[in-house]
Amino acid sequence: MLIESVPNFSEGRRSEVMAAIADAARIDGVKVLGMEGDPDHNRSVLTVVGEPQALVEAIFRAAQVAVTHINLHNHHGTHPRMGAIDVVPFIPLQDATMEDAVDAARKLGRRFAQDLNIPVYLYEQAATKPERKNLADVRRGQFEGLSHRMVSDPPDFGPAHPHPTAGASAIGARLPLIAFNVFLNTTDMTLAKNVARAVRGSSGGLVGIKALAMNTVSHGQVQVSLNLVDYPKTPLPRALEMIRQEAMRYGVTVSHTELVGFMPAQAILDTVRYYLQQPEFRLDQILEWAIMADSSLEQP
Amino acid sequence: MLIESVPNFSEGRRSEVMAAIADAARIDGVKVLGMEGDPDHNRSVLTVVGEPQALVEAIFRAAQVAVTHINLHNHHGTHPRMGAIDVVPFIPLQDATMEDAVDAARKLGRRFAQDLNIPVYLYEQAATKPERKNLADVRRGQFEGLSHRMVSDPPDFGPAHPHPTAGASAIGARLPLIAFNVFLNTTDMTLAKNVARAVRGSSGGLVGIKALAMNTVSHGQVQVSLNLVDYPKTPLPRALEMIRQEAMRYGVTVSHTELVGFMPAQAILDTVRYYLQQPEFRLDQILEWAIMADSSLEQP
Repeated sequence: MLIESVPNFSEGRRSEVMAAIADAARIDGVKVLGMEGDPDHNRSVLTVVGEPQALVEAIFRAAQVAVTHINLHNHHGTHPRMGAIDVVPFIPLQDATMEDAVDAARKLGRRFAQDLNIPVYLYEQAATKPERKNLADVRRGQFEGLSHRMVSDPPDFGPAHPHPTAGASAIGARLPLIAFNVFLNTTDMTLAKNVARAVRGSSGGLVGIKALAMNTVSHGQVQVSLNLVDYPKTPLPRALEMIRQEAMRYGVTVSHTELVGFMPAQAILDTVRYYLQQPEFRLDQILEWAIMADSSLEQP
Repeated sequence: MLIESVPNFSEGRRSEVMAAIADAARIDGVKVLGMEGDPDHNRSVLTVVGEPQALVEAIFRAAQVAVTHINLHNHHGTHPRMGAIDVVPFIPLQDATMEDAVDAARKLGRRFAQDLNIPVYLYEQAATKPERKNLADVRRGQFEGLSHRMVSDPPDFGPAHPHPTAGASAIGARLPLIAFNVFLNTTDMTLAKNVARAVRGSSGGLVGIKALAMNTVSHGQVQVSLNLVDYPKTPLPRALEMIRQEAMRYGVTVSHTELVGFMPAQAILDTVRYYLQQPEFRLDQILEWAIMADSSLEQP
């Protein structure tokens, strides 16, 4: 049973600190798939996959290292944050259920409180109150507002005051999401905002889509940055084609796209079936996939 | 080092015979990925992958079974054939080279001759004469014409006369190919032939494409059946888009497509990069691929 986690750390500039955090997570039963830092956000994302118990242990060890190196009083970046280990989502893969992911979130939360003295708010599918479902609400006020806010809003685990240097952490469970950027052949940010508004669920567009217009004009283009939060229902190719269509209203074309991090195989299946018009396509028709998926055949 | 082979047997109707052939190939170091029979063609294709020495042994064992069950004197089907084990292509995968595949073809050829008394013609990259490069030329005259033809055209291995019931075999080495069918929303076979002619390399179309119009009018559609024989140079999405364009000249659209057997991961990469306009996309950005490709993480 495999679970994925993408813990976010409030460090995106000191590469030796990011490397030390990632190294601490390399234990038996856990695979570190990536560690990506963003200097502007001053934030990094670790991608780890493993069996639940080992995964909780690996993230705890990474958090131990993060706490010794990160002091929120000295932390500046463009991304909102309330803790050194700002947010830890658990994501069920394969045979794992959402309940398994919620269980992992609770176990990690207890360890953060007991062994690191960091207060923990459970969010999304792990939330204990409806008003803690949405991560943005949980993080409102950021690190600087924690002391005041925690008096009336005690955490799920740990003390009702922030850790002196590491603040508080949000730990939760959710479905996988796809982070996908679409670059448009224009420098017109108003146009990009119009396209983002058209495709975004909260403003009348596709239900499973969060979209933001991003100023990347220095590259000669603007970007529509997408989160696909329910890609089985609102699949990637449909979102991309809607952006193409909306941009074309203004005579503007898509220049290229990029994927941030990983995407689930289901999104590849959806993409191939859509564009090749091949509803019967299966991933095990990819020769290398069929070979890898068969454990009886050793890889060279 | 992995090599693929897709031996073609002249049996596509008796499922117990096809199962016995496939079972004989299941030995250590070899993975049987599929066995597909076509009753009209009266022909089956076994897909096997493995380390070269084990793969040659596995196909030899499958051939031993085939020889005991198949008699070409009683064989009728729409597909041209000259032997019970009609054709055996070896295809280099991953770190294997074409030379490795040619070597496997020669080794299997020697065993067919010595242990089964079946004459063998080497073809394509394994051919010993230019006029044996093309499989269709090697098979010309079919089983019925073998006795006459072999007098003046002796095989590379084995006797200069056909095996009494199993005929002769063509064994060779080639790059992987993709077999891909495109269904058009029309019953007009003339139109399908025009589209096939436009896209096919031999009549002025794309170099790496073989194309045939197939009568599937009983399904309310016609089919353009493609072989992509050099998919790195002439990739799948470009071929499909050209068919779409040519059909649209007549106001006809693509209904759907189908893949016959497997396609290499490179074709998926090409498809995703093309349609998502994402030139930087890598297969290890697929979460499940990254997990499978890492042998340090045991699968559940």
